[in-house]
Amino acid sequence: MHKAILPLAIAALCAGAPAHAANRTDNVDVFIGTGGDGHTFPGATRPFGMVQLSPDTQVRHFRQSYPWAAGYRYEDDSILGFSHTHFSGAGHSDLGDVLLMPTGGEVKLEPGYPERPFSGYRSRFSHKDERAEPGYYAVKLLDNDVDVELTASERVGLHRYRFKPGAQANVILDLRSSIYDWSGKNLWSRVRLRGNDTVTGMRETRGWAPGRQLYFAIRFSRPIVAHQLMNREEGVEYRGFAAPGKAPADKVLVEGKALEGTFGFGTPADGTVLVKVAVSGVSEDGALANLAEMPGWDFDAERRRAHDAWEDALGAVDIDAPQPMKRMAYTSLYHALLAPSLFMDADGKYRGPDNQVHAAQGFRFHSTFSLWDTYRALHPLLTLIQPEKRNVDFVRSLVESQKASPYGILPVWQFAGLETWCMIGYHAVPVIADAYMKGLKGFDADEALRAMTASAEYGPYGGLQHYMKLGYVPIDLEPEAASKTVEYAFDDWTIARMADRMGRRDVADRYYKRAQNWRNVFDRKTGFVRAKTSDGKYREPFDPVRSNFGSDYTEGSAWQYSWYMPHDNAGLVKLLGGDAGLIDKIDQVFDAKIDPTVYAHMEDISGLIGHYAHGNEPSHHVAYLYNYAGAPWKTQARLAQIVKSQYRDTPDGLAGNDDLGQMSAWFAFTALGFYPVAPGSNEYVIGRPFVERAALNLPNGKRFTIRTEGLSDANPYVGSVTLNGKPLARSVLRHDEIVAGGELVFRMQATPNRDWGKAPAARPYTQTAY
Amino acid sequence: MHKAILPLAIAALCAGAPAHAANRTDNVDVFIGTGGDGHTFPGATRPFGMVQLSPDTQVRHFRQSYPWAAGYRYEDDSILGFSHTHFSGAGHSDLGDVLLMPTGGEVKLEPGYPERPFSGYRSRFSHKDERAEPGYYAVKLLDNDVDVELTASERVGLHRYRFKPGAQANVILDLRSSIYDWSGKNLWSRVRLRGNDTVTGMRETRGWAPGRQLYFAIRFSRPIVAHQLMNREEGVEYRGFAAPGKAPADKVLVEGKALEGTFGFGTPADGTVLVKVAVSGVSEDGALANLAEMPGWDFDAERRRAHDAWEDALGAVDIDAPQPMKRMAYTSLYHALLAPSLFMDADGKYRGPDNQVHAAQGFRFHSTFSLWDTYRALHPLLTLIQPEKRNVDFVRSLVESQKASPYGILPVWQFAGLETWCMIGYHAVPVIADAYMKGLKGFDADEALRAMTASAEYGPYGGLQHYMKLGYVPIDLEPEAASKTVEYAFDDWTIARMADRMGRRDVADRYYKRAQNWRNVFDRKTGFVRAKTSDGKYREPFDPVRSNFGSDYTEGSAWQYSWYMPHDNAGLVKLLGGDAGLIDKIDQVFDAKIDPTVYAHMEDISGLIGHYAHGNEPSHHVAYLYNYAGAPWKTQARLAQIVKSQYRDTPDGLAGNDDLGQMSAWFAFTALGFYPVAPGSNEYVIGRPFVERAALNLPNGKRFTIRTEGLSDANPYVGSVTLNGKPLARSVLRHDEIVAGGELVFRMQATPNRDWGKAPAARPYTQTAY
Repeated sequence: MHKAILPLAIAALCAGAPAHAANRTDNVDVFIGTGGDGHTFPGATRPFGMVQLSPDTQVRHFRQSYPWAAGYRYEDDSILGFSHTHFSGAGHSDLGDVLLMPTGGEVKLEPGYPERPFSGYRSRFSHKDERAEPGYYAVKLLDNDVDVELTASERVGLHRYRFKPGAQANVILDLRSSIYDWSGKNLWSRVRLRGNDTVTGMRETRGWAPGRQLYFAIRFSRPIVAHQLMNREEGVEYRGFAAPGKAPADKVLVEGKALEGTFGFGTPADGTVLVKVAVSGVSEDGALANLAEMPGWDFDAERRRAHDAWEDALGAVDIDAPQPMKRMAYTSLYHALLAPSLFMDADGKYRGPDNQVHAAQGFRFHSTFSLWDTYRALHPLLTLIQPEKRNVDFVRSLVESQKASPYGILPVWQFAGLETWCMIGYHAVPVIADAYMKGLKGFDADEALRAMTASAEYGPYGGLQHYMKLGYVPIDLEPEAASKTVEYAFDDWTIARMADRMGRRDVADRYYKRAQNWRNVFDRKTGFVRAKTSDGKYREPFDPVRSNFGSDYTEGSAWQYSWYMPHDNAGLVKLLGGDAGLIDKIDQVFDAKIDPTVYAHMEDISGLIGHYAHGNEPSHHVAYLYNYAGAPWKTQARLAQIVKSQYRDTPDGLAGNDDLGQMSAWFAFTALGFYPVAPGSNEYVIGRPFVERAALNLPNGKRFTIRTEGLSDANPYVGSVTLNGKPLARSVLRHDEIVAGGELVFRMQATPNRDWGKAPAARPYTQTAY
Repeated sequence: MHKAILPLAIAALCAGAPAHAANRTDNVDVFIGTGGDGHTFPGATRPFGMVQLSPDTQVRHFRQSYPWAAGYRYEDDSILGFSHTHFSGAGHSDLGDVLLMPTGGEVKLEPGYPERPFSGYRSRFSHKDERAEPGYYAVKLLDNDVDVELTASERVGLHRYRFKPGAQANVILDLRSSIYDWSGKNLWSRVRLRGNDTVTGMRETRGWAPGRQLYFAIRFSRPIVAHQLMNREEGVEYRGFAAPGKAPADKVLVEGKALEGTFGFGTPADGTVLVKVAVSGVSEDGALANLAEMPGWDFDAERRRAHDAWEDALGAVDIDAPQPMKRMAYTSLYHALLAPSLFMDADGKYRGPDNQVHAAQGFRFHSTFSLWDTYRALHPLLTLIQPEKRNVDFVRSLVESQKASPYGILPVWQFAGLETWCMIGYHAVPVIADAYMKGLKGFDADEALRAMTASAEYGPYGGLQHYMKLGYVPIDLEPEAASKTVEYAFDDWTIARMADRMGRRDVADRYYKRAQNWRNVFDRKTGFVRAKTSDGKYREPFDPVRSNFGSDYTEGSAWQYSWYMPHDNAGLVKLLGGDAGLIDKIDQVFDAKIDPTVYAHMEDISGLIGHYAHGNEPSHHVAYLYNYAGAPWKTQARLAQIVKSQYRDTPDGLAGNDDLGQMSAWFAFTALGFYPVAPGSNEYVIGRPFVERAALNLPNGKRFTIRTEGLSDANPYVGSVTLNGKPLARSVLRHDEIVAGGELVFRMQATPNRDWGKAPAARPYTQTAY
C-alpha cells in the first residue's frame, strides 16, 4: 500500500487537500492490477468517466503491446507523460490520447529512453513518491523536477504541476504517443492555439477502432508566454503550401501525423501551473464546451468532488472484513465502476458506430463495452447496484448503437462509439435480457428485442448463417467454431427468456430451440465440446489442450470450454453421466497436472489451476458448477483455492486482465457469497462469502445484508444458510429476494456440509424452455 | 464544335431529351479550354454547383500534375471514369472525388493503361461520340460498351448508363482515384452499403487542402444484385479484427486508404441504370439528405432543369456577334459562373476553415475562392451580373470563414471550406470592398471591415509584420517580396476606400497611407518594381526577366510585375517620366523579342506576347494601362492583338489556366468593351468591344446595352463613344452609369483616334486618398 508509506514531501504537497474522515475510498488501492497481467491503471477518473487520466510508463519508440495495455506498468521506473484515455484491464488495447508532460527547465522534444535518464522528456519516478486514490493521482517527476497531481470530472482532466521555485515552467504535448502504438497509427491530427491560454485539436487513429477521432481542448491556468507547434513527420511526399508562422514559435496551427507542441509559462511566482483537458468524440467545439463542466481552478475542490463521487458510487456496497480482504473487495468494486464509460458531449452529441455524430435523446451515451468479458458478472453487478438511470444509459447506448450500426447489429467490443470486432458472440444480448428480466424500465423493450434478434440473425457475422442452418458453427467455414456455438446458444436462451417474459411466444419458441444448439457440439464420446465441420463430423485430430490460433476455441481449450452452457447445466450433468460425472470432470479441470508450457503461447490464458484459467473469462463460472451436481461444498473449496491463489492486494494482485471490471466483478460477487452463472436466469448460485459482513444499499432504497458466522481460513465451508432468519435449503438465491431487502447469513465451518444443496430441488435453475 | 457533328447513335440516345429552341446555352462550347493550358472540364454542373461531374482522362498510376488539373484533357483518347468534383481552370489542383465507371460485362479492378485497351476498367472514347452543353455531358465508352449521360442539380450528380441489350450492367466505384494524386493522399476512407440501392461513404485526403473530408451518398435506380467491397491497400501494419463478411461480396462496410467497390445490376430489361451521387462536406447523413434535392429518376427532366438554370444564369448578358466570337463570349460567361461554388448541405451545415461543422444563418456558404486570380475581373463581373443574394453569399462566406479561421483572417485560396495558402495577398479584401463600393447590401459592413483589417494586419502571414514595420516586404525575410508589396498596397487601398465610404476615417487614413507602399519598391533607377532587403537596399544582382522560385516575384518577372499599382496608375505614369514613359514601357512589354526558354520553366507563365503573359493574372490589366497615359488607341490595338492570339473557339482556345473563371471574365469584360482595372474604384476602363451588340440584364431590372457601329477586323479602333446618346469624352465608365441602365455605343474605325481620352480629365480614376 502506497498511502501507508506516504513520504513527507508528498504529504506537504497535499497539504491543501481535504482531510477525509475514514471512508470507503480509503479501502481502495488503485495500484492493484497495475503490475503482472492486471492491465489496470492508477490514474484519476470519476465513476464511468469519459476522461480516465493516468500516467503512461510505456516506451515510446517501440511497438507496444500486451504488457502496456493500460499505458502504465508498476514495474517501470520512469513516466512518459500523462494521457487522458485508458482502458482498465484490457487485453488488446488502444487510447493514451493527449499526452502531456511537464518539465521544469529544458524542453526536450523526444521522449528518450528509460535506461538513459535525461535522454528525453520522460522522467524517473519512485513509487514512494506516488500517491493515488479514486479520483486522484500524485507523483514526483524526479528528472523533470515537477510535482504532479491529477484529478478529473466526467469529461475534464485536471492537472496541477508544481515546479521548483524559479524554474521555467514548460508543458509538452505529444500527439504522437499512443498506447499500443503501431507506427503509422496516426492518420491525421491537428493542434490549434486559441488565444493565450487554450489549445484545441484532434487526432484520428487507425488502431483497435479504425478511423477513431478524438478531439480535445486544453486550457492552462496561466497565459502561455512561449510556444512551439511542430509536425515532426518525415518523408512527407506533399506538404502543401506554407501556412503563416515559419518557426514553430510563430505557428498557431499544425496539421499532420506527428504533432508536438510545447508551452512555456515563464517562472510562475507560486511555481504552479494547472491544466484542464476536455475530450470529445464530436469536435473541437464539443471539447471546448465540455471544459465548462469544470469552471474554476480550485484543484482541491475538484479533487473533493471526485472523492465524493467515488464515496457515493462505492457506497452501493458496505464491506466489513479484515485487511487485506476489505481492500481487495473495495478495489474490485472500484474497478467494476470504470466501464462502460461516458462517451457523449455535454450537449448530448456523440459519435456512433457509423462514425457519424448523433444526438442522444433522454439518455447518456456510454461506450467501452468489453461484452465478451462483462456480460458474465460485471453487467449483472451493475444491474444490481447501479442506479436505474445508469443502467438505462447502458441499455439504450447498446440499442442506439444497433440502430446506427452499418451492420444493423448490437456492439461486440465497442469503444469511442466504434466497433472493434474483438472476441466472439453477441453478448450485448444477455446484458439487455438480464437487465430486462430484472425489471429495468426506461427503454423500449420491443425495440431492444428487435435489436437482439437482428444481431442473432445477421448471417455474415461469426458464421451465424451456418449456425442458423446447421445448428452449429462449422469449423471449416468459421474459426473458433466450438466456442461460438456454445456462446451463441447461451445468448439465444437469454433472447428466449426476454421474449417469453414479454409474451412474444413466437420469438421465445425460436430461441429456446436455438438455445439447445450447444448439444450439437458436445461430443458424448470424448465428453468435450468440439468443433464440427459442415458435413456434421467432428474435426480430427482432436487434442483437448489445444488452444492456439486455429483451434476449435476462442482463447481456450476443450478443457476450458466444454462446460459452457450456463442455461442448461442440468443438461450437461446428464450428458456427463450424472452428478458424479460432472464433479469428476470439473475436478479433473482443477486438478490436472499440466505442462506449464501448454498455454504459455496464449497471453490471455493466465491464472492457471490445472486447466482452470482464472485469468480469462471462459473459466469464470466453472467453480460454481458443482452446485448443479448437488455438491456446493466442492464449489466452496474451489472458491477458497481460487481466491487464495489468484487475488492479492499488490500491484500484481490480479491473475489476469481485469477486462474492464469482469475479473473484479467476479471477485465482488464471490466475496459476497454468490455469483450470476447464467445472466437472464434471475438466479445467483451460492458459493461462500469471503467478507465478514456486507450490505448492498440497493437503488430502490432497500438494504440486503450478507453476514457470516465463524468465517476464517479454518472454516472454508458453508454449514448452513438462512435468509431473513429462515433456513435456506437451496444453493441458489433469487434476484427478487435480494431486491426485497433482507439478510443472508452464512454459518461457516471447518468441514463440508455435503447435504446442503444436494437435493434436486435445491439446485440452481435449470429450465431451458417454458 | 461537337454538337455540329453529332452522330446518329448519340442523337438516338438523346431522343428523350427536350428539343430546345435556339437559346443561349447553344452558344456555349464546354470543350473550349479542355485542351492546351486551359484546365477546364467538359462535364455537367449547375451554375456555382457543389457537384461538378465530369469525365477524368488522367492516368491513374502516375503522379498526375499540371496538365490534368481538371481531370480531363481533350488530347486523351480514353476515360478513366466520372468523378463529382472538379476545379475549372486551376493551376494547382485536387478533387476528382467519387469516381464511378460503368462497364457492360467483365469487371476489372484496376484502371489499366490508355495505350493498352482492355487492360483495365478505363475505356477508349471518341470525341465524335461526345456531346456536351451546360449541365449535360454524354459519351460512348467504346471498350466498356456503355452510353453515358451526365447531368446535375446543385448537390447531386445524375448518371444515365445504357448498356448493350443482354449485357451485364456493372458500376465500379474507385475511391483511390484523385486528381493530382500523390501516393498516400488518401488518409482514410469508408464505403458502406445501405439497403439494396444505396451506398454512402467518405474520403479524407491530404492534398491541396490537407485533412479534407468529402462525404457522399450514391443511389442506384435499380437494386444492387451483386457487390464487392474491397480495401486494396498493401502493407497495412495493423488491420484490426475482421468485420463481418469475409469475401468482398459479403461485406457491407470497408474502411482504409484504398477502397474500391463494384455493383452489379444483372441485365436490366431496358439496359439502363441511373445513378445519383450527392456530396457533402459534413457527413454521410448530410450527403443522404442532399439526395432529396433530386427526388425522381427522370433524367430528361433533370437535364431540362439544369438547362433552364443555365439559360437563366447566362441570361444576365445577351450577346450578338458573328461566330466564333459569340460562342467564345458565351463560353467565357459560362466559365465565369462555375466558382465560387456552393459548399453547404441542404440543411445549412458546412465545414469551415477550422475543419469544424458550422450552420449557415441566412446565407448559403460557398467555397472555391481562387482569390489571387478572381478578385481582378471575375468577382467584379459577378458583382455586376449576379443576383444580390448570390453576391451576399460570396461576401458572407468570406466573412464567416474569417470568423472560423484558426488565424482569424479571410480566405487566401479556399476550397471545401479549407485554406490552401496558395498564392499571395489578402485578396478577399478587394472582393468585399468592391462589392460594398458597388452598393451590395445584406452583410454587416462593420464586421466585414474588421475581418479585412484583421487579415491585413496579421503579422505572421506573408511577411505582413515586416511590411507593417518597413513599408515593404523584405526579400531576405520573405520570398516573392516585390509582388507581395505591390499587391498588399492595392488591397490596402480597397480597405481605405470602403472605410472612407463607411465614414471610418481612422481606418481609411491608415490604409490610404499603406496603399502608397508600392512606391517603396519601385526602383526609379531601373524603372522596375524590385525587392528590397530589410536594410532598405534593393537586392542585387537584379535580372528583370528572372521569374523562377527565389526571384522577387510570384509567377512573374519584373517585366510583368512592375505595373501593378492599379489604384495609382497616375503615380506610375509620373515615376516613369510621364505619358510617353509609360507608353514606352508597356510597348516594350509587348514588343520584346524574348528567348522562348526564359519563362519555359514556369508552368503558369503562358500566353506570351513579348513579356506579356496573358495566361497568367499579373498581366491582365496591363493592356488597359495606356488609357492612363491618355492613349486609349494603344489599349485598343493591344486588345485586338491579345484576343486574336490568346483566345480561340477550340479546346486549346485558352492561352492559360482559366483560373476559376478569371481568364474568361477578362474576355467577357473585354468583349463588352471595358475592364475593371482597379476593383474598388467603381470604374471600368474602356477598351474596345469585340461583339456587335450586348446587353447586361441587370439584377435591378435595368438593362445596359453596348452597341457597336462599324465593328470589323479592319476597324479595330474606337472613333467615338456615346453614352445614352451623348458623347463620352473620357475613356472610363462609372459603375453607377451601368446600373442606371442605358446604352453605350462605340463607333469603330480603321485608324486610331489619338485625341479621344487624351485629356487628363478624360483618363481613368487616379485618386489615392481623400
